Amino acid sequence: MSLNTYGHLFRVTTWGESHGPALGATVDGCPPGIAVDEAMLQHWMDKRKPGQNKYTTQRREPDAVRILSGVFEGRTTGTPVQLMIENTDQRSKDYGDIAEKFRPGHADITYWQKYGIRDYRGGGRSSARETAARVAAGGLARAALAALAPSVEITGYMVQMGPRRAEPARYDMAEIPRNPFWCPDPVAAADWAEYLDALRKSGDSVGAVIEVVARGVPAGLGAPIYGKLDTDLAAAMMSINAVKGVEIGDGMAAAALTGTENADEIRMGPDGPVYTSNHAGGILGGISTGQEVVVRFSVKPTSSILTSRRTITRSGEDTDIVTKGRHDPCVGIRAVPVGEAMMACVILDHLLLHRGQVGAAGGRIGPGA
Amino acid sequence: MSLNTYGHLFRVTTWGESHGPALGATVDGCPPGIAVDEAMLQHWMDKRKPGQNKYTTQRREPDAVRILSGVFEGRTTGTPVQLMIENTDQRSKDYGDIAEKFRPGHADITYWQKYGIRDYRGGGRSSARETAARVAAGGLARAALAALAPSVEITGYMVQMGPRRAEPARYDMAEIPRNPFWCPDPVAAADWAEYLDALRKSGDSVGAVIEVVARGVPAGLGAPIYGKLDTDLAAAMMSINAVKGVEIGDGMAAAALTGTENADEIRMGPDGPVYTSNHAGGILGGISTGQEVVVRFSVKPTSSILTSRRTITRSGEDTDIVTKGRHDPCVGIRAVPVGEAMMACVILDHLLLHRGQVGAAGGRIGPGA
Amino acid sequence: MSLNTYGHLFRVTTWGESHGPALGATVDGCPPGIAVDEAMLQHWMDKRKPGQNKYTTQRREPDAVRILSGVFEGRTTGTPVQLMIENTDQRSKDYGDIAEKFRPGHADITYWQKYGIRDYRGGGRSSARETAARVAAGGLARAALAALAPSVEITGYMVQMGPRRAEPARYDMAEIPRNPFWCPDPVAAADWAEYLDALRKSGDSVGAVIEVVARGVPAGLGAPIYGKLDTDLAAAMMSINAVKGVEIGDGMAAAALTGTENADEIRMGPDGPVYTSNHAGGILGGISTGQEVVVRFSVKPTSSILTSRRTITRSGEDTDIVTKGRHDPCVGIRAVPVGEAMMACVILDHLLLHRGQVGAAGGRIGPGA
Amino acid sequence: MSLNTYGHLFRVTTWGESHGPALGATVDGCPPGIAVDEAMLQHWMDKRKPGQNKYTTQRREPDAVRILSGVFEGRTTGTPVQLMIENTDQRSKDYGDIAEKFRPGHADITYWQKYGIRDYRGGGRSSARETAARVAAGGLARAALAALAPSVEITGYMVQMGPRRAEPARYDMAEIPRNPFWCPDPVAAADWAEYLDALRKSGDSVGAVIEVVARGVPAGLGAPIYGKLDTDLAAAMMSINAVKGVEIGDGMAAAALTGTENADEIRMGPDGPVYTSNHAGGILGGISTGQEVVVRFSVKPTSSILTSRRTITRSGEDTDIVTKGRHDPCVGIRAVPVGEAMMACVILDHLLLHRGQVGAAGGRIGPGA
Repeated sequence: MSLNTYGHLFRVTTWGESHGPALGATVDGCPPGIAVDEAMLQHWMDKRKPGQNKYTTQRREPDAVRILSGVFEGRTTGTPVQLMIENTDQRSKDYGDIAEKFRPGHADITYWQKYGIRDYRGGGRSSARETAARVAAGGLARAALAALAPSVEITGYMVQMGPRRAEPARYDMAEIPRNPFWCPDPVAAADWAEYLDALRKSGDSVGAVIEVVARGVPAGLGAPIYGKLDTDLAAAMMSINAVKGVEIGDGMAAAALTGTENADEIRMGPDGPVYTSNHAGGILGGISTGQEVVVRFSVKPTSSILTSRRTITRSGEDTDIVTKGRHDPCVGIRAVPVGEAMMACVILDHLLLHRGQVGAAGGRIGPGA
Repeated sequence: MSLNTYGHLFRVTTWGESHGPALGATVDGCPPGIAVDEAMLQHWMDKRKPGQNKYTTQRREPDAVRILSGVFEGRTTGTPVQLMIENTDQRSKDYGDIAEKFRPGHADITYWQKYGIRDYRGGGRSSARETAARVAAGGLARAALAALAPSVEITGYMVQMGPRRAEPARYDMAEIPRNPFWCPDPVAAADWAEYLDALRKSGDSVGAVIEVVARGVPAGLGAPIYGKLDTDLAAAMMSINAVKGVEIGDGMAAAALTGTENADEIRMGPDGPVYTSNHAGGILGGISTGQEVVVRFSVKPTSSILTSRRTITRSGEDTDIVTKGRHDPCVGIRAVPVGEAMMACVILDHLLLHRGQVGAAGGRIGPGA
Repeated sequence: MSLNTYGHLFRVTTWGESHGPALGATVDGCPPGIAVDEAMLQHWMDKRKPGQNKYTTQRREPDAVRILSGVFEGRTTGTPVQLMIENTDQRSKDYGDIAEKFRPGHADITYWQKYGIRDYRGGGRSSARETAARVAAGGLARAALAALAPSVEITGYMVQMGPRRAEPARYDMAEIPRNPFWCPDPVAAADWAEYLDALRKSGDSVGAVIEVVARGVPAGLGAPIYGKLDTDLAAAMMSINAVKGVEIGDGMAAAALTGTENADEIRMGPDGPVYTSNHAGGILGGISTGQEVVVRFSVKPTSSILTSRRTITRSGEDTDIVTKGRHDPCVGIRAVPVGEAMMACVILDHLLLHRGQVGAAGGRIGPGA
Repeated sequence: MSLNTYGHLFRVTTWGESHGPALGATVDGCPPGIAVDEAMLQHWMDKRKPGQNKYTTQRREPDAVRILSGVFEGRTTGTPVQLMIENTDQRSKDYGDIAEKFRPGHADITYWQKYGIRDYRGGGRSSARETAARVAAGGLARAALAALAPSVEITGYMVQMGPRRAEPARYDMAEIPRNPFWCPDPVAAADWAEYLDALRKSGDSVGAVIEVVARGVPAGLGAPIYGKLDTDLAAAMMSINAVKGVEIGDGMAAAALTGTENADEIRMGPDGPVYTSNHAGGILGGISTGQEVVVRFSVKPTSSILTSRRTITRSGEDTDIVTKGRHDPCVGIRAVPVGEAMMACVILDHLLLHRGQVGAAGGRIGPGA
């Protein structure tokens, strides 16, 4: 069943709540012999870490990741890797309000309806804090990819904040780490800074669209029919908190095209097939083509806002709620490293699966084939 | 691993190729005692059946489904149900062209690159014909839902063809079966008829957007964090041939909203919580709220078109291809019953999972809770 | 969940009942490019086929296996392989007695208690007839092993009938197919023939012990801690109808040894490690050593006997039952090819798993390692 | 895949090595609302804890278990429960010898051949220390059973040490905790004490047979064909370190019986079916009958002995080895609580599975049924 697990062969089980003593990821199926240490993982943790600028939650967590098992003398052993992150800033406060009231847009009410018990402190298990464990696991997946498929390069960035879209013609990947939004378009980044400042001050929040691209993915990854690369990416991204839509390549816009427009025509290049376009987002029939794998997902606005909203209490009384506390005005910002982590895990998983599944080598294209 | 399987407890494994002797679905985990027979399944098969009007492939298949196991004296026994559909209209023809050339937009090239062998006849395993098996399994899921959760009602329809959108203000669910597009907006349906006629004559094709809604789903279904209801729906829909995007509730548009706009406020109604809106598509934190579960997905235009496109041969030579044969100008039409089938399977699966998972009853909301 | 499925990557789902129209195996995860046809599978089916001599059930089934999918032009394609066996000799008879009474030692009562419905005809799903599907799948596994690990050789044989044990000192593997008991000891075989004749005539039945050996299994297969090679073999054998015990290597007798006696000492041979003995049955820590993998399992006596036994009816009345019909006096005989099939599936599965799991090559032993 | 995981719905993933900072169990699928705390788990940990008498390893570990997630205000929340046990007594020593030499009977050589790297400190992942995590998880399973199926009572005990068997006629369950061998036969216990003293002094070790019985298991648990209760028990027990054989009911001895002898006849009792005997060990067709579920398994003698044994080094040289250190002369003693833990996990898992799987209630037996 593995309801808190993703992956077929590289299996990541996350555990832990927002305000418990710790959270983490139990990773089973990491290949042996991979060079990895805590510092390598911390690099990615720091990208997601809260409190880095005024646009992310002011909760102060070092998010220091510890490797408790599965690594010996700096290399993985093929046994489960336990990655633990202790929660240190569990600000002591009165939870009475959210213990009784269901915050609209949050999982408070549904966890209650499902389980009949909920850890209301900071959202408990449904807190975005759970994604810290994913980023740790993603760091491990990147280390494995570096060893097994060094051509793979994964980059995530924000392409839309609220109604304001970045302009692809201005994309410069070098810009991504230079602004707090991981935005490749410097003009949009400047615009978003002003926009988000105003929103934040008004006690409101806003949604976003994130794009994650994987370059250098070998052709042939993906397991049709129900373990397709795009199927697994859709599940991976949709499982991130607050995500409401997932697109591969042209995504929803593919509906508006004709077959003539949509065809990614093929030419023979010096090193194999070359495509004249990439409407498909690098995936055909659920299998990678060797082009860039392109995924986009929308993140809804943070539900915790200072604007009063109507809701009910556990005992069924109508009431209002204002969600005070430390919240990201645009939670999409911190979803960027999370999306990258999920992409890394899915690509690695399918790389391993491809090895296990295929007896004969995949088909060659070229003279005599 | 189960790469041709979906579901946690209600597990559907589809098998078969477009031009093999038969295809089908092996369904493990159907609860016992469910009343079902071949006629009940055939009802849904007929909805998807090709050759019903000029907008769907002229391949003539009765698509008669046979129950080979798991049903005794008209009721399921709790053992695997084998659903088989024989292929009868495997039009004998020369496959030489597509045996050598890779059709752009199809999985021809990636299956070759992955497996080093492919059944090129009609697309083999990657043919949309595989979805017949899903519809059969979906029929069984509906029979089980009718017994176990009779409030559940699942309806799919087309809301966009190419760039032309249906108008929600005109939706009338009674219209859906009255036009060949399963469109609830009669004005749009008439418009699409003209539009698609012209496209078909020009040898082109077009994409579409399908919406599937499940009403009467009890609150509490969904298994966070990685078996969320929306995660599983995203995977289910993305696994359908030609799907490139999946949305829950507001989907990609959620990115453009503020937190104030996006909040689905809650009031206490006579029978439990009532929401003032449904931006979330009936799912919070991966768990159903009791509202309508709303999923949308885009289907890319049929890749088999009469317009010549550039491609390469297996031996690496540049060439052109025109895909003759019997093809749907808008494959999205027949994706409607497929989307419904996937919804039925996912809802049933989570209903069973919820029973198995929960020791205590879910939480009550109301006085004294 | 996959409750009718075994295997991690080579996944076999069997379906079908004793007296339904057909039964079979849906095999997902067979590597592509494997040469296989129906005749190759039939070879193994014929070994298990009923009615071949006076010691097996006189039900006349050709047990002809059909390949419905996953094979194209004589080779597997990497897509699911559907293997179907039609039931032809469903002797029409009055089932009234076993419909109402629970046969002692059979699953009649427990299927009823679990499901509230049962296909009582010939035992339905719990009939040993289900093992025909396993043998078909095992044939496919053997074909894959022949291509991927040609050194592997799998042999099953009976080593005990009732209280009478074969004598290892007399074992001659060439004797196995020469007697109806697959016994490598010709003296025991002759003795068993007399013994079983008498039992059969008295309307009684008897148990047996089967041993299955796999030679040429490469070192390194097995996935600790819970997908160990011995764990998976134990599950595979215990899942066979009527099996009550499973042993690896010395098995239960290992308990009586001291550590000094039990140690399989190691010497360096020209081609790698050589062991001075094989108490461990070729498996250490769940991983193959490269020695013979040795599994034994006991099969209880056929529960269907002509001797009257006490039982109850569905409505709770005490009664007696005599199970007439066509039954094997020693069902262990036909368990031999079934045990071989399970061994083949498990070994192949772990071979595939090993490929997928391991990034670095396994460790070398020798100078400089 | 989940190669370090067992269970279908109650899924336990163990992690950690003998000499790493910690080890533990990630438990996914525990029902919500179960009362549990660290003290309840510690009760079972203490039963397995090393260093309690002269017959178990003198490694001093408090084996204190911490609950890091999934429990809120003393009750489970339905989210993953992380159970961590820190390793405190990692006696600093020179591992040079076992780093280079492969200990016969241990997994040293096979881990190396599989992974090309191994944590040789104390056996690393293949150490019996891993079973501490199982006992913690088993404690949680017992807490859940206490709430959901309070009739279930699980008892393990040793029935054979080396060649010396306990005598069932003398069994008194009250004796079990009174001797260091968990033996229900006080005469055998006294005899074993002498026997093991002598063995220990001679630097040798010995095997054992453990029996685990579950009383009060409701009829109807078990999921045929490949998730049978006996199949899962066989896998669970065989996965325990050093186990070489598993038996259900009469086990291997069932082979020697005739059908007449083996039949567990049925009579109608006041509360349902009553059996005249229990050769089947409480399981028919993979489903529980309501009788005692009886499992036995053999544990081979500890491979770490003071007697010199021949082996090879990693670089392929012949050598000898004496395994010094703190080792149990009869590791079977500490396998008793481990076997109990596995039984608890399997029974709970099938209880949950039964709830999820069955739509209709199971069948009633009695007038009018």
